[in-house]
Amino acid sequence: MIDPGETLATLRERKPLVHSITNYVVMNETANAVLALGALPVMAHAREEVQEMVGLAGALVLNIGTLEESWIDSMLLAGTAANERGVPVVLDPVGAGATAYRTETAKRILDSVDVAVLRGNPGEVATLVGVEAEVRGVESIGTGGDTAELARGAARTLGVVASVTGAVDHVSDGERTISISNGHELLASVTGTGCMSTVLTGCFLAAKKDALEAAAEALVAFGVAGEDAAVGAKGPGSFHVALYDALAALDPASLNSRARVSEE
Amino acid sequence: MIDPGETLATLRERKPLVHSITNYVVMNETANAVLALGALPVMAHAREEVQEMVGLAGALVLNIGTLEESWIDSMLLAGTAANERGVPVVLDPVGAGATAYRTETAKRILDSVDVAVLRGNPGEVATLVGVEAEVRGVESIGTGGDTAELARGAARTLGVVASVTGAVDHVSDGERTISISNGHELLASVTGTGCMSTVLTGCFLAAKKDALEAAAEALVAFGVAGEDAAVGAKGPGSFHVALYDALAALDPASLNSRARVSEE
Amino acid sequence: MIDPGETLATLRERKPLVHSITNYVVMNETANAVLALGALPVMAHAREEVQEMVGLAGALVLNIGTLEESWIDSMLLAGTAANERGVPVVLDPVGAGATAYRTETAKRILDSVDVAVLRGNPGEVATLVGVEAEVRGVESIGTGGDTAELARGAARTLGVVASVTGAVDHVSDGERTISISNGHELLASVTGTGCMSTVLTGCFLAAKKDALEAAAEALVAFGVAGEDAAVGAKGPGSFHVALYDALAALDPASLNSRARVSEE
Repeated sequence: MIDPGETLATLRERKPLVHSITNYVVMNETANAVLALGALPVMAHAREEVQEMVGLAGALVLNIGTLEESWIDSMLLAGTAANERGVPVVLDPVGAGATAYRTETAKRILDSVDVAVLRGNPGEVATLVGVEAEVRGVESIGTGGDTAELARGAARTLGVVASVTGAVDHVSDGERTISISNGHELLASVTGTGCMSTVLTGCFLAAKKDALEAAAEALVAFGVAGEDAAVGAKGPGSFHVALYDALAALDPASLNSRARVSEE
Repeated sequence: MIDPGETLATLRERKPLVHSITNYVVMNETANAVLALGALPVMAHAREEVQEMVGLAGALVLNIGTLEESWIDSMLLAGTAANERGVPVVLDPVGAGATAYRTETAKRILDSVDVAVLRGNPGEVATLVGVEAEVRGVESIGTGGDTAELARGAARTLGVVASVTGAVDHVSDGERTISISNGHELLASVTGTGCMSTVLTGCFLAAKKDALEAAAEALVAFGVAGEDAAVGAKGPGSFHVALYDALAALDPASLNSRARVSEE
Repeated sequence: MIDPGETLATLRERKPLVHSITNYVVMNETANAVLALGALPVMAHAREEVQEMVGLAGALVLNIGTLEESWIDSMLLAGTAANERGVPVVLDPVGAGATAYRTETAKRILDSVDVAVLRGNPGEVATLVGVEAEVRGVESIGTGGDTAELARGAARTLGVVASVTGAVDHVSDGERTISISNGHELLASVTGTGCMSTVLTGCFLAAKKDALEAAAEALVAFGVAGEDAAVGAKGPGSFHVALYDALAALDPASLNSRARVSEE
């Protein structure tokens, strides 16, 4: 059952460590999002320590937003260690489709690591299942297409929970597909909000075993925070600041009543 | 003709991708400045992908603020690829003059890559044309000297449009020299605002071919945003936040009337 | 004599360069904290330039928050150069105790470099003196234990000024132990505030020779700024922004009257 309030309460009680190997652009922002939500962030990318660090973690988040070879090695090492220890892995294929290097790296991780949730925008996810897509850099620029069907297909083809975010988000395990209509258009005006939704997915996975539901709940929580942050925001700067305030202020008791969720 | 309003309108319609290979300190901030202005930012530094990425871009921004050897290699690769494809290149020689490594790297890029616009503070630009300058780290600490003349001389010596920023900015192609008096002193209280002016120069170059005018227009737009952000700011933190709001709120229709520009 | 107001006034007059080799997560935030306080930040990590850069600096800050081998080499090079030139070194052993790699790297730096001030949370410092501690990633999660005693013991064992921060901070050179009760609980809700306290310690060391007193004064200044920032803050986002405003607004004339300091 989708119960973001309950999962959030659990998360705040347990304060799981969420280990990210992520891009330089969003390291501070995603760490602060995790901390504001109520979990503990850590960034560590050295091959000398990623296996040990992931052993302390409740979830591992891999994000390919600013790649280089040694970081890919560390992602594969950490992902494999996470799999061995039952730590759920979330992958954000930032910019897959923009360059072959990103597309191939995302595929390589999907081949080598048992990814619980793939969180991306429609263009990135479409690229990974071989559907033609327009990807211009790393910012989501929307697609036509049926993203519910895209999520369902990606889940089946790739053997993951596919979490495809946009104006309406679709999360699917190939059988069940959940759509989430929470959020606000200002989220698209700040870089890294996609990466934030990925790392918050990691937080929810650290607090709830059902990956489909945890992924959907994370998007509810983040979307509600976005709605709250938009109140009084004067633009992307003040919205960005208010987003952390809103994540910290999320109320487990009322969160479910705010959820705009449907299931096909 | 200096027409920042028109160029901004074009930029927002086209939404060009601006590819940065930049320093760790300002990656998030410059990405958000680009997005707030209305273009699409991307950071990519791996030699495996920079040539492909720059092929998608409307401008390439090279910034040497946190150097290491592999990043220099990627800057040269990307810069050469940009030249081959007619993508304009902006160079920010952060800290040139502070260490030999930075001075030599900036010179090496200028020698190997056809740089359209060199955007720096007076000390950095003076260093690159062999004029004695006081550079203390990477923050601009002002100079005496005639910065209009410095910009003109740098443009002639280096074969670039030189964009020398300070309390008054001077942009020169060696023939025409434009001075811009927009801006606010709070810009100097936030790290990375120089880097922002560089990346916004890239945005304007992606929307207008005339490099001299595009560089000057970018400084008008950024300066006006700084003026707007200063209204109600309580210090560097709130000013920094308001700067993104102000960039997003820039109005193409009224921007020209705000420009404080003169040409010698 | 503890005189944070006087040291702050000196610092703002001299504007020393503070050279950090620090982690990716906090580079922007610590640079902005230094600039807001009134000094000049620079980040430089390439082995080709760290020795030259540290020669320009009033203090060197080493922070192991996102390690890799080449960065450790640069920290050792820079630290040794700093020692040769009499530039004080501050070490932040981020995550010591979380992984062997971090613990060993912190110890290696302490063995190779004459560290003036070790600034950490209780778990990190306890790890480095062989006391059992719970460390979960890099965020401070509190400890029981007597942190005044921990600071005193660490100072004696490691031959440093130990600056152990928490709800109450304790700074000791092994003889004198100063406790600082300034601060606000919202500081724990923003990632990197520990790193900020470290880099501000570097700023104060660049303005005052007595390392014990400089370290204590830095925590007074940062704590007072935290108290001011908390006024009107709605959560971690708005607090974070207000922290830079508050650092810039710190008044040397009234700072001493705000200090909540005692000495054992």
